[in-house]
Amino acid sequence: METISENRCFDGTQGVYRHASEATGTDMTFGLFLPAEAEDGPVPVLWYLSGLTCTHANAMEKAGAQQWAAEQGIALVFPDTSPRGAGVPDDPAYDLGQGAGFYLNAVQDPWAEHFQMWSYITEELPQALFHRFALDEERQAITGHSMGGHGALTIAMHHPDRFASVSAFAPICNPMESDWGQKQFTAYLGSNTALWEAHDASVLMRERGFAGPILIDTGTADQFGDLLRTEVLAEAMAARRQHATLRLQPGYDHSYWFVSSFMEDHVTFHAEALYGVRT
Amino acid sequence: METISENRCFDGTQGVYRHASEATGTDMTFGLFLPAEAEDGPVPVLWYLSGLTCTHANAMEKAGAQQWAAEQGIALVFPDTSPRGAGVPDDPAYDLGQGAGFYLNAVQDPWAEHFQMWSYITEELPQALFHRFALDEERQAITGHSMGGHGALTIAMHHPDRFASVSAFAPICNPMESDWGQKQFTAYLGSNTALWEAHDASVLMRERGFAGPILIDTGTADQFGDLLRTEVLAEAMAARRQHATLRLQPGYDHSYWFVSSFMEDHVTFHAEALYGVRT
Repeated sequence: METISENRCFDGTQGVYRHASEATGTDMTFGLFLPAEAEDGPVPVLWYLSGLTCTHANAMEKAGAQQWAAEQGIALVFPDTSPRGAGVPDDPAYDLGQGAGFYLNAVQDPWAEHFQMWSYITEELPQALFHRFALDEERQAITGHSMGGHGALTIAMHHPDRFASVSAFAPICNPMESDWGQKQFTAYLGSNTALWEAHDASVLMRERGFAGPILIDTGTADQFGDLLRTEVLAEAMAARRQHATLRLQPGYDHSYWFVSSFMEDHVTFHAEALYGVRT
Repeated sequence: METISENRCFDGTQGVYRHASEATGTDMTFGLFLPAEAEDGPVPVLWYLSGLTCTHANAMEKAGAQQWAAEQGIALVFPDTSPRGAGVPDDPAYDLGQGAGFYLNAVQDPWAEHFQMWSYITEELPQALFHRFALDEERQAITGHSMGGHGALTIAMHHPDRFASVSAFAPICNPMESDWGQKQFTAYLGSNTALWEAHDASVLMRERGFAGPILIDTGTADQFGDLLRTEVLAEAMAARRQHATLRLQPGYDHSYWFVSSFMEDHVTFHAEALYGVRT
């Protein structure tokens, strides 16, 4: 694993690292914030999965999460959203190919060779992180934005014993029925919609739910609101009596200005689930 | 004045605007954060001047200032660091020409036609802002990073009645005696060092000081520490008995990871000077 950079930040360290991934067959870059407490032993981990077009850097630089993670003594992981590089297939559209991995394992050509983000995020990267850094595998939580909110919700519901809590900012809630989903599922997974269901948060909420608490924030002025289909997940959460909070935030859109505005709430929410909040 | 974007952020609005500048002879872009209180009337203003290579966007996106400005009911202005465009002279080096205006009025060719950032920041942009937005001209403060810290300190000391307080993150403190300064002053101002003295914070501190309080943070691991010449300003502030706090922050470097780590302190410092801090 190669260290790209390490900078002191809120008494901890914001690092960027690169490693060779077997899952994607490429080098992968990620950001990791370690609070000062990591010098004394393993700390809890909050995963942050980013949205379409993002690299590891967007949320790391714009979401303002480090200060709250430092306050709570929690590490933050910022993975990339897809494999990248000259040998990796891509598409002219912003929402397919590089920057748009959708947190699944592709089975269709030309994507299947490299687009294995499900395995990368749920298996390979955790193994690399817990081997190398002072992170507590027993205390993990997960969040994300847009496509990354979709990833956080679906990964959490498939790993009920791994995450104490899950949250999302403006998540894609029902990709099977959205233009943010049907196009990508068709390309990556093919036409068998049985495969799609494993990657639809609303379907998973109906079928299995999540053992811990859920927090979702979405802006009422989200310019992609129709694509998110928040109402389908809302209905499924309520029908299931899922322990969850869904907040529609007046006037906020889909940008990182929205994400940063509510980051304190999300980090505090996860801290409470992980080990009781510090005051 | 053209609105590039407006996004809801911490109950206020983060806007980006473009206007034609007579001072620079170009279009200029700036960011402006207005807290919710601006809907009810003029609010105090904190100017943030950025460093070498930056546009209006770097601090706006990475410094995490909006949350604290929202808490204190203060507006934030993020100007660009130089004129830009195809007709504007430039230099291959990162520290001269576009992105490196140094907050002065050039008198040497080819720079003099467009590089008039002193007039733009101290006269033209304030007039445009106070004409258009709900900002209180009687309650202003100023801060900046690196070259922008140099700008904040020199502009504040030349306008003792305008700013209640001045702060800086890793400012260039003594450009007359630094490679971050001599090169640019020679290019923009020529060889007459009498002109240089008006743009050297340490010289100005010896000659006139500042009526309000000053806060300066610089990292002990700043990779450009020798270029900043913090020790010269420190000596001048102490000799003058200037009301000031200089903090050398252990382990921090020159990056925005450093700036964001101490932004809460700086906004709170200015809020206290502007109208007493909110608790």
